[in-house]
Amino acid sequence: MTPERAYPLNAWYPAAWSHEIGHALFARKICDQNVVFYRRQDGAAVALEDACWHRLLPLSLGRLRGDEVVCGYHGLVFNSDGRCSFMPAQKTINPSACVRAFPAVERHRLVWIWPGDPALADPLKLPDFHWNDGTEWVGEGGTFVSLQCDWRLVVDNLMDLTHETYVHAGSIGDEAILEAPFEATHDESTATLTRWMIGIEPPPFWGKQLGKPAPVDRWQIVRFEAPAVVVGDVGVAPTRTGAREGDRSQGVNGAFLAALAPETATSCHYFWNFVRTFKRDDEGLTRALQSAHVNDGKGVYDQDHRILEAQQRAILENPRQPFYNLNIDAGALWARRLIDDLVARERPRAVAE
Amino acid sequence: MTPERAYPLNAWYPAAWSHEIGHALFARKICDQNVVFYRRQDGAAVALEDACWHRLLPLSLGRLRGDEVVCGYHGLVFNSDGRCSFMPAQKTINPSACVRAFPAVERHRLVWIWPGDPALADPLKLPDFHWNDGTEWVGEGGTFVSLQCDWRLVVDNLMDLTHETYVHAGSIGDEAILEAPFEATHDESTATLTRWMIGIEPPPFWGKQLGKPAPVDRWQIVRFEAPAVVVGDVGVAPTRTGAREGDRSQGVNGAFLAALAPETATSCHYFWNFVRTFKRDDEGLTRALQSAHVNDGKGVYDQDHRILEAQQRAILENPRQPFYNLNIDAGALWARRLIDDLVARERPRAVAE
Amino acid sequence: MTPERAYPLNAWYPAAWSHEIGHALFARKICDQNVVFYRRQDGAAVALEDACWHRLLPLSLGRLRGDEVVCGYHGLVFNSDGRCSFMPAQKTINPSACVRAFPAVERHRLVWIWPGDPALADPLKLPDFHWNDGTEWVGEGGTFVSLQCDWRLVVDNLMDLTHETYVHAGSIGDEAILEAPFEATHDESTATLTRWMIGIEPPPFWGKQLGKPAPVDRWQIVRFEAPAVVVGDVGVAPTRTGAREGDRSQGVNGAFLAALAPETATSCHYFWNFVRTFKRDDEGLTRALQSAHVNDGKGVYDQDHRILEAQQRAILENPRQPFYNLNIDAGALWARRLIDDLVARERPRAVAE
Repeated sequence: MTPERAYPLNAWYPAAWSHEIGHALFARKICDQNVVFYRRQDGAAVALEDACWHRLLPLSLGRLRGDEVVCGYHGLVFNSDGRCSFMPAQKTINPSACVRAFPAVERHRLVWIWPGDPALADPLKLPDFHWNDGTEWVGEGGTFVSLQCDWRLVVDNLMDLTHETYVHAGSIGDEAILEAPFEATHDESTATLTRWMIGIEPPPFWGKQLGKPAPVDRWQIVRFEAPAVVVGDVGVAPTRTGAREGDRSQGVNGAFLAALAPETATSCHYFWNFVRTFKRDDEGLTRALQSAHVNDGKGVYDQDHRILEAQQRAILENPRQPFYNLNIDAGALWARRLIDDLVARERPRAVAE
Repeated sequence: MTPERAYPLNAWYPAAWSHEIGHALFARKICDQNVVFYRRQDGAAVALEDACWHRLLPLSLGRLRGDEVVCGYHGLVFNSDGRCSFMPAQKTINPSACVRAFPAVERHRLVWIWPGDPALADPLKLPDFHWNDGTEWVGEGGTFVSLQCDWRLVVDNLMDLTHETYVHAGSIGDEAILEAPFEATHDESTATLTRWMIGIEPPPFWGKQLGKPAPVDRWQIVRFEAPAVVVGDVGVAPTRTGAREGDRSQGVNGAFLAALAPETATSCHYFWNFVRTFKRDDEGLTRALQSAHVNDGKGVYDQDHRILEAQQRAILENPRQPFYNLNIDAGALWARRLIDDLVARERPRAVAE
Repeated sequence: MTPERAYPLNAWYPAAWSHEIGHALFARKICDQNVVFYRRQDGAAVALEDACWHRLLPLSLGRLRGDEVVCGYHGLVFNSDGRCSFMPAQKTINPSACVRAFPAVERHRLVWIWPGDPALADPLKLPDFHWNDGTEWVGEGGTFVSLQCDWRLVVDNLMDLTHETYVHAGSIGDEAILEAPFEATHDESTATLTRWMIGIEPPPFWGKQLGKPAPVDRWQIVRFEAPAVVVGDVGVAPTRTGAREGDRSQGVNGAFLAALAPETATSCHYFWNFVRTFKRDDEGLTRALQSAHVNDGKGVYDQDHRILEAQQRAILENPRQPFYNLNIDAGALWARRLIDDLVARERPRAVAE
C-alpha cells in the first residue's frame, strides 16, 4: 500500500521550538518539503526552501551573512524573502532567481509555517495553543523529531484515552476510563471528546497531586483543532465540589499539548508538552513530569512512540483496509473527517464539476 | 526484476521449533504474513494473524491472559480461534471482529502451519520428517531465521550435492562426487536424486566415523517432498558388504534434514538438522556435528548461507533469465517443477477455461 | 524522480588503478554491470561479467586456477575470454556457455574497460591521460569508490572552479576567480574552460610553491574529454614573464586529473590525482598534496565529496527540473552536451527515421 499525501498544505504547522531557531541555519523537512530556518538579526524567524535555485544544494549547508544565506557551493546569496541578491562572476541577476519563502509566525513558544499558498496564510488562522506560552500554565515538553508514523495516527492516539489503560497500565491508566461514558462533539474545525468519571478512586499520579482524600471526580476533555493540534484538559477534584459544573477551585488541573507536523506521508514531528496550573513554582515537579513523559524509552510517551511506529509498519505491510472502528473511536473519527475535508478541498476539481 | 509469489499457500510449512513456542507471544513472518504464536495452557500451539482487527497493531506487542491475547493498544482480546472476546468500553462485540487463525500442528519437534485455505489443512498432508523426532535418529540442528534468499534456492542447493566439492572443499567435498553417475526420479509429490560411489576412498569425516579400512561404498539419496522438505540419506559402508542392495549393517548412516518456510519472495526460514543412527549416545559428537554445520560463520552451512545470499542478490540485480541448467540440476529441476505445479494450481483461472 | 541511464556504453571508462589488479579476483560495478577483474600470469588485465553462466553466483566469490576462474558454487571454469572450459559431472560443454568478457586496456596507471559493443572498442579511442603515467608529471592520487552521486555532477564540479571560492575558502579558493573573465571553447569531443588572472596576489598555496614575490599571473585551463576525463592545467608565474603567451619557465605548473566511471545512475567511481612538474623529487610534498586533497574528511576533495552527495540527494528528492544555469556553467554545459550526444547516439532509433 503506497501512502498518498493525506495532509492539507494550507494550514499552519509547528516547525520548531522557538529556542531551536537562532542566528544559524537549521534544516527540517515539513510536509515533504526541505526547509531551512534561521532567525534574522531583528528576531524574525525565516523559513526558506532548502535547495539552491541554481544546483539544488541544500542552503542549510551554506552559511549566514547578515540576514542573508550564502550557498555553500557557488556562493549565490538569497535574502530572507528568498530572492537572489548575488550570483558569482556575473553582474546581472536573473530576476526569476529565488527560492521559496514560507510564511512563518512565532507564537506560543513555537515557530509555525504555512506550506501552502502564501496568499492564504492568515495568522488569525493559527490554532489556539496558548497553554504552551509559559505564562498561566507551566511545563517543559519536548519533541519527537521524525517519529516514524503518519501524523494522523498520533491524532487517533490522543483522541482516545482508552489506550491509557493498556499502553500506560501502572501509571495514568485506569480501568475506570473504560467504564465511564463519554461524549464526542464537533464543529467545523474542532472535535472534542469529553469524559467525566464521577466519585472514583483517583489514579496514583492524580491522587498524589491533589493531596486530599478520595473519592474524586476526574475529567478528560480532549479537543482537536484541525489539522494539527490536540489539547487535553485533564484533572481531578474532590467529588461533589462542583468541578463538572465549572468550579475546579478545589481540584488540580493539567493539560497535555500536542502540535503535529507531517514530515512525510509516514513520518511526523510531534511537539508535546504537559502543563499545569498547580504547584507552578515547583521546578522539581516540572522536571519529573517531563521525564515521566519522555525518558530514554521509559516514559509514557515513549510507550506510545513504540506503539505508533509499530502500527505504521503494520499498515504499510498489511494490504487490507486498515481500520475497523469501535465506539471509543468517535473522537478520532471526527478528527479524521475534519482532516479529510481539508485535504479534499485542495484536490484539483474536475472541469465538469 | 520484481519477484512475484512463488510458493503455494495450501501447504504445511515449518514455522518454529517446538522449544521456541511457550506460554508467551512469539512473532514470525511466514509466506509474507505476520503470525503470532503461543502455546495454550493445554499445550496446543496457536498461530494467529499478528495484527489487531481494530488498528492493526501487532498482537505480539500485547500480552497473554490465560489462553487469550490482549492487544497492547486498546485491550481488545482474542481467543485462540482468533475470535474477539472483549472490546473496551462497549458491551456489544462486533460479531465479525476476529483475526485469522492458522491451522497449526506440532509434529517431529516442529510447529507447522498452513497459510492457505484452512478447510484444506489436512494433517495427513504433513510431510514425512520423522528423522527429526529424536527417537531412532539423533542430532541437534538449528535455524537460519530470515535467510536472505528465495527458499527455492535452498532446495536447488540441497538437491545437487555437486556443490560440496566446491563450496565445502576440505570437509565433506570430494572429487568422487563429480565422477559418480546419479539418477533422478520423481513421482507426483517427491523428487529423488540417488548417487552411489562404489569402492572409493571415504572422505575424512566418513572414514573417521566408519572406523574401518577403505575402500567404501558411499551413498547420497536426497529426497524432496513438495513443497518444503528435503531429506538426504547419506553414509558409507565397507565396499562389497551389500549396502547398495539394502544391507547397511556394516556401515554408518546419517541424514541431513531441511524444512523450509518462505518468509517473503526473497527470504526464508531454514530449519535444519543432521541426524544419525550411529554413536547415538555420543553427545560430544552431537555437538561437534552441530558446530560443523553452523559455527559463527565457519560451518559448512555457513558457507552455503553466504553463497545463497550472494546468489539472491545477483538474481535481483541481473535482468537476464536467471538460470541455465546442467546435467547436475536434474534433481533440482524436478523439485522446481513440483513447486511450480502447486503454485499454478492456486492461480485464479480464466472463466473460459 | 527515477533516474535513467545517462552514460554512453561505447566508451572507455577507468575501472581500477593498475596496482589494484593482481593475480586475484577483484569485483567492482561499472555502468550498472558487475565485473570481476584479475591479472593473467602474462600480466594482462582481464575483466569478466561477475556472474556465473549457470546460477549467477558472482565469480568473484570463486578462485583463480592458473589464468582461469573457478566458480565457487559448482566449479564451472571460465577462461579469460569468458568461455566455459569445464562443467561438473559432464563431459560435454554447452558451446554457448560463457560469461561476457569486457575489452580491457591498461594505460597511464589505470585499467580501462569498454562496457559497450566489443567490436567498437578501439584502444585509439582511449582518452588522453598521460599526465598520470608517473614520468614527466609526478603525484599520488586516490579513488572515491562508489561516490554517491551521478558522475556528471563531478564533471559539473570540475568544469567550474568558481566553487573553489565557496567550497574551498581558506585554501585554494580566491575571490579573484570570481572577477576573472573566462572563455569556454569546445570541439566534437572536448570542452575547455580557460581563465587567466593577470597580476594578482597568488593564493597561499601557489605563492608558497612559486617562492617569488607577487604579483603573479594565474591560469586554470580545464579540459573535458568526453565522456569521462577532466584534466585541469593550473599554475602561476610571475606576471609579465610571458606565461600567457606560452613561456611558463618562470612559473610552477600542476594538473588535477579526474577519470570517472559511472557505477549506477546515482553513483560513480572517481579516480583522481594531482600532479606537478615542479619539485618532482620532493616526496614530502607529494604526500602533503595527496593529504591536502583527501584526508579523512578534511581535504579539499572531501569537501567536494560532501557537496556532491548532498546535491545528489537533493536531486532525488526534488521534483522540479533540477538545474538553472549561470554564466559560470558554460564549460559544464558543453561537457553535458557532449555526453548527451554520446548517449543519444546509443538510443534505439525509430524505424521511420
